[in-house]
Amino acid sequence: MVCQLRCIADVCLIPIGTGSPSVSNYVAQVENLIRKSNLKSTLHSAGTTIEGPWNEVMDLVGQAHELCHEMGVLRVQSDIRVGSRIDKKQTAADKVNIVEDLIKNMK
Amino acid sequence: MVCQLRCIADVCLIPIGTGSPSVSNYVAQVENLIRKSNLKSTLHSAGTTIEGPWNEVMDLVGQAHELCHEMGVLRVQSDIRVGSRIDKKQTAADKVNIVEDLIKNMK
Amino acid sequence: MVCQLRCIADVCLIPIGTGSPSVSNYVAQVENLIRKSNLKSTLHSAGTTIEGPWNEVMDLVGQAHELCHEMGVLRVQSDIRVGSRIDKKQTAADKVNIVEDLIKNMK
Amino acid sequence: MVCQLRCIADVCLIPIGTGSPSVSNYVAQVENLIRKSNLKSTLHSAGTTIEGPWNEVMDLVGQAHELCHEMGVLRVQSDIRVGSRIDKKQTAADKVNIVEDLIKNMK
Repeated sequence: MVCQLRCIADVCLIPIGTGSPSVSNYVAQVENLIRKSNLKSTLHSAGTTIEGPWNEVMDLVGQAHELCHEMGVLRVQSDIRVGSRIDKKQTAADKVNIVEDLIKNMK
Repeated sequence: MVCQLRCIADVCLIPIGTGSPSVSNYVAQVENLIRKSNLKSTLHSAGTTIEGPWNEVMDLVGQAHELCHEMGVLRVQSDIRVGSRIDKKQTAADKVNIVEDLIKNMK
Repeated sequence: MVCQLRCIADVCLIPIGTGSPSVSNYVAQVENLIRKSNLKSTLHSAGTTIEGPWNEVMDLVGQAHELCHEMGVLRVQSDIRVGSRIDKKQTAADKVNIVEDLIKNMK
Repeated sequence: MVCQLRCIADVCLIPIGTGSPSVSNYVAQVENLIRKSNLKSTLHSAGTTIEGPWNEVMDLVGQAHELCHEMGVLRVQSDIRVGSRIDKKQTAADKVNIVEDLIKNMK
């Protein structure tokens, strides 16, 4: 069986054992890979949010691990926050806009 | 391209909007689904650790989301900590044993 | 002993058992609390990034849980990605800028 | 204001830039620190679960970061899954037992 859901996944990838506390070079290569895919994504300081069909999103994260391994990283760890909902379609941008609108009305 | 890596993924699934703070019924159904799969898994208080090929593991987590939606949950959120390494094969049990052995030698 | 580190923490808070899949009302109240604090923060679709002394940041997240409980939420779960580094000072904005600059140079 | 909640926090700590993909030595030192505290904890393959007052738990995680920095690690990243609930007292062990009981009754 293959999961048919759409999802929004926020991914924070960490290369382990690289010898330097700076890992932005790896993160930039991963971000480049994600942007070249056909999935919508948004970069922020603690990760990248990717939107699309579950298996395409998760396969893309797996490709990001593979890319790091090809670059010589022996171990890669990711934290993925992934959500699916069936009551309505909602984009990552929608989620931010709803909260910002609610905050405006509080003032 | 399909990711060919093996991985260890630790999954914490949260049904959202269920009307009750107790979600163990959903977690038990998900755990049952995972145990019926052919992937090795270990339950702990903050999630379940699943070991296997990347796409099989991630598809299983997607199926867990689908199962919750079939049970009437409109929104599901998971936190996944997933690691891959290419320097050696290591199981989830190995990871605990190495740390326990090191702690014994500290005393 | 009290931890003296500075940190960057990315927080995704989920109210559990609210009866509705829409939790933006709670998230907006939490975001408002965070913005009223004296800590720098940035909202994105999968959480909020907070920068400052470790204990102030973590206490603020605890206050966010307390606020949700005061609003009637019986259970609250957060996922926190927190980093500390001692080789250099770096803001959340710096992290994004470095990656964007590297990607520009790839093209 | 100081958060007065109790919590259950599951912590996965990753030293960054260590030069080796094996980080069990750091993890063991951190686990040793946690066990010497007066907070209840449980080690599993993807982290350690710590139970207690919010600020004590979070300060302990901060001390774990400090310990790694003292051991020469320039950057440390943790993923913390933390939950609080006000409808009942529940330990980490309770959470596992409830799910295991429910699964038994499914068969």
